Amino acid sequence: MKKLVLVLADAGLELVPRELWSHPAVKSHAKRRGKNPGRMLLDISVHYAAMKTLNEYWKRGRPDIVHVSLLVAQDSVLNRLGYLHTVIHTYDGKLVELDPSMVVPRNYNRFVGLFEQLLEKGQVPPGSEKPLAKLRTGRNLGEVLKEMGVDAVYRLSEKGEPVKPLDLARRIAGSDVPAVIIGAFQRGEFSKEVLSIEAEEYSIFREALPAWTVVAEVVVSLEHVSVWGASH
Amino acid sequence: MKKLVLVLADAGLELVPRELWSHPAVKSHAKRRGKNPGRMLLDISVHYAAMKTLNEYWKRGRPDIVHVSLLVAQDSVLNRLGYLHTVIHTYDGKLVELDPSMVVPRNYNRFVGLFEQLLEKGQVPPGSEKPLAKLRTGRNLGEVLKEMGVDAVYRLSEKGEPVKPLDLARRIAGSDVPAVIIGAFQRGEFSKEVLSIEAEEYSIFREALPAWTVVAEVVVSLEHVSVWGASH
Repeated sequence: MKKLVLVLADAGLELVPRELWSHPAVKSHAKRRGKNPGRMLLDISVHYAAMKTLNEYWKRGRPDIVHVSLLVAQDSVLNRLGYLHTVIHTYDGKLVELDPSMVVPRNYNRFVGLFEQLLEKGQVPPGSEKPLAKLRTGRNLGEVLKEMGVDAVYRLSEKGEPVKPLDLARRIAGSDVPAVIIGAFQRGEFSKEVLSIEAEEYSIFREALPAWTVVAEVVVSLEHVSVWGASH
Repeated sequence: MKKLVLVLADAGLELVPRELWSHPAVKSHAKRRGKNPGRMLLDISVHYAAMKTLNEYWKRGRPDIVHVSLLVAQDSVLNRLGYLHTVIHTYDGKLVELDPSMVVPRNYNRFVGLFEQLLEKGQVPPGSEKPLAKLRTGRNLGEVLKEMGVDAVYRLSEKGEPVKPLDLARRIAGSDVPAVIIGAFQRGEFSKEVLSIEAEEYSIFREALPAWTVVAEVVVSLEHVSVWGASH
């Protein structure tokens, strides 16, 4: 394995959609933050009352899932050693590519501020020649994976073939540039776009697990196989 | 291994100390939250200006480190399978024992509210016969580990003997009730109290790692050894 492309898929990461701007819960939160509603991340922990009418609301408004998953991924030993490339695919089909050197803000509220800027300006820091994170526009997930040289795709899902994490890691590490797709939403199914990508589907545990748990399992198991050697 | 006692040590988790209550940064934040300063968690992301005069401020005001580390620990497969007992040891020597069934609030601001209640009332939910988290008063860390039946202690530190994570896991899993101590502070040394506990000291990587990264390494590696069997 030369590098791993980690995809956080169908992530509940979006700015507050226009139809909710005038809802009292959104307006009062926007006032408290001194920010325009359309420039804030949708967040079910504060916008729940407003979100109930939203299509598939249970997959949306969860920047916290992205935040914790990114902390686990970007601060991993696998990333420190230069093996990791992280991509976020959002509920509304946007794609964010992270630079491996990006230190994810430790504080949630600062993370929210940074990703609001990212979704609004297209990259952070704005205007930088070497942004820490940037939107990839005009491409779908399959095209971005192809551009990154991905030669095998693995999708993790409760419905996949049961496999022990270390056995899965051995299989993944057999490819030069594998991609691993992990759902970054609370509940429901992967989107059609994500399911349309040809992939082997595996399950590492009999129950649903949060995205960050799956990230930790995949990343640490791959370290054992690709970095430290777990054959002994 | 029958169970693992995971200790998040010297965690920067405390209520705002009295000497900072009248600082403008603290007062304005307290007003914004509609809360008494002494009932709020100290948080360097909002109280930095006030904290600079505080003794060892670089080890304090980091509930975010506890939050992410707890999400990784409590949502791990090792915990789902009943192997994990998590203890938080704070900068000021308080001890918090978590029930393995505790689902850590996903949202940071909700986590802060819950832990404010915990530190103020002594447990959450207050008055429950089977609290999800409770303060252990009148004991130090060594006494609590003894009460939990710990028969071997491992401390992770950059200064320890270098070891591959899976080899460390094999060593840890050789005890019935091992404890693993992980620093949950940004920088600096373990406290005298933590260093006074007799322990084998190991280093799993050549650079300092955030607490949640070390938690993920230890927990996932122990799953390979104790649950799935990584001998093949």
